Amino acid sequence: MTGLLTVVGLGPGAAEHRTPAAAQAVREAEVVLGYSAYIDACADLLGAGQTVLRGRMTEESRRAEQAVALAAAGHRVALVSSGDAGVYGMATLALSTAAELPVARRPEVRVLPGVTAALASSALVGAPLAHDFACLTLSSLLTPWEEVERRLRAVAAADLALALYNPRSAGRTWQLDRAREVLLEHRGPGTQVALVTDAARPEQHVRLTTLGELDSSVVGMTTTVLVGASATRRLGDWLVTPRAAGA
Amino acid sequence: MTGLLTVVGLGPGAAEHRTPAAAQAVREAEVVLGYSAYIDACADLLGAGQTVLRGRMTEESRRAEQAVALAAAGHRVALVSSGDAGVYGMATLALSTAAELPVARRPEVRVLPGVTAALASSALVGAPLAHDFACLTLSSLLTPWEEVERRLRAVAAADLALALYNPRSAGRTWQLDRAREVLLEHRGPGTQVALVTDAARPEQHVRLTTLGELDSSVVGMTTTVLVGASATRRLGDWLVTPRAAGA
Repeated sequence: MTGLLTVVGLGPGAAEHRTPAAAQAVREAEVVLGYSAYIDACADLLGAGQTVLRGRMTEESRRAEQAVALAAAGHRVALVSSGDAGVYGMATLALSTAAELPVARRPEVRVLPGVTAALASSALVGAPLAHDFACLTLSSLLTPWEEVERRLRAVAAADLALALYNPRSAGRTWQLDRAREVLLEHRGPGTQVALVTDAARPEQHVRLTTLGELDSSVVGMTTTVLVGASATRRLGDWLVTPRAAGA
Repeated sequence: MTGLLTVVGLGPGAAEHRTPAAAQAVREAEVVLGYSAYIDACADLLGAGQTVLRGRMTEESRRAEQAVALAAAGHRVALVSSGDAGVYGMATLALSTAAELPVARRPEVRVLPGVTAALASSALVGAPLAHDFACLTLSSLLTPWEEVERRLRAVAAADLALALYNPRSAGRTWQLDRAREVLLEHRGPGTQVALVTDAARPEQHVRLTTLGELDSSVVGMTTTVLVGASATRRLGDWLVTPRAAGA
């Protein structure tokens, strides 16, 4: 008898932005797996009868295999990610791993959506993503940098608003500056930018700036960089993008 | 004394995907405003002591003005949208309207994020938006169609996955077919497509197809059209996009 694997998006951090479906899946799981910080983000849901397996940042494939194997063995398993599990999260790995099993041994898999960082960050500064927008990652660990630049150029030229995930870390310090240069080829230096760090967590920090004045040194691993479209305006402490393109 | 206006994203439909923050804002409001279908989506939260103002689809500006005026008069107001209030939602109108008031008369405004249709739909079919993606609207009521095509071309050429909002309605029947033609200039006919109608509602319906075989006649106002990147694969009933571009 096979079990159930639920791939859960926990939202940005605070429990108030975590969906009831996500909370229920974690509460009802016999085994909860996730990167250690994400286990912390749902610690309020965990009980004594549950097995909790904390993983490391770089062990995503192993974690997906473990989650699928446990569900295939008949357990009710929750594999947790922050934000939305399907956006730069664990869902693809979990589904691909499950699909490698013979049908008879394959567990049921469900994916639960969540509030991804782009949306949590955007709400804090108003509505910069109110019209067409794109989410791009600047992490070149999995994507060749030339491909990242090609995408940045296309999105900038098409005048979409933009949420940049993984903009900078201790080991990736030049990518955001280079991204800024690429964007400035198509967007004016006055383009509105918001740097939202630790959205919906106690240490939450918001900084409004422009593409011309963007100081990448204040950006870290938990920052989402929001870049407005040409129509995005600053109104006091808010950024708003009109619902009509070019309006 | 001014009040508080909270612009609330209710999520896709079912209460299980509505955040606790959204639920609390609606429960604590003295006045709840929204398009009639969105009021229905939070009917379980409404009590006898609340004033509920149901609006029509085309009266967004009027509704935003009403919400801001009520909050400016000292009331605690919730202006509700489906999905995320900041994505093709009411947040921009509400913030822009509030910003027109003199500072002393301006109410406090908060925006609460929610699970937008792209994420709710994506989770139902696996993880098609697992790497870089864009959200575009095909509604040309507010955006000139040439601009929509320009954005489609850019996103298709950059090989982003894509969520199309407002793909078709009784009065807008040709846009999706034309969008398909534009996408086919850059993407193969085997490109994975999911048509997700009424995600997270009782009448939810999912149809997997390809760009070559996409039949627009089954698409309606409440459908989100998800178009995979070139790397997006179908695994049984799932669509997955690898986390590395081009992988």
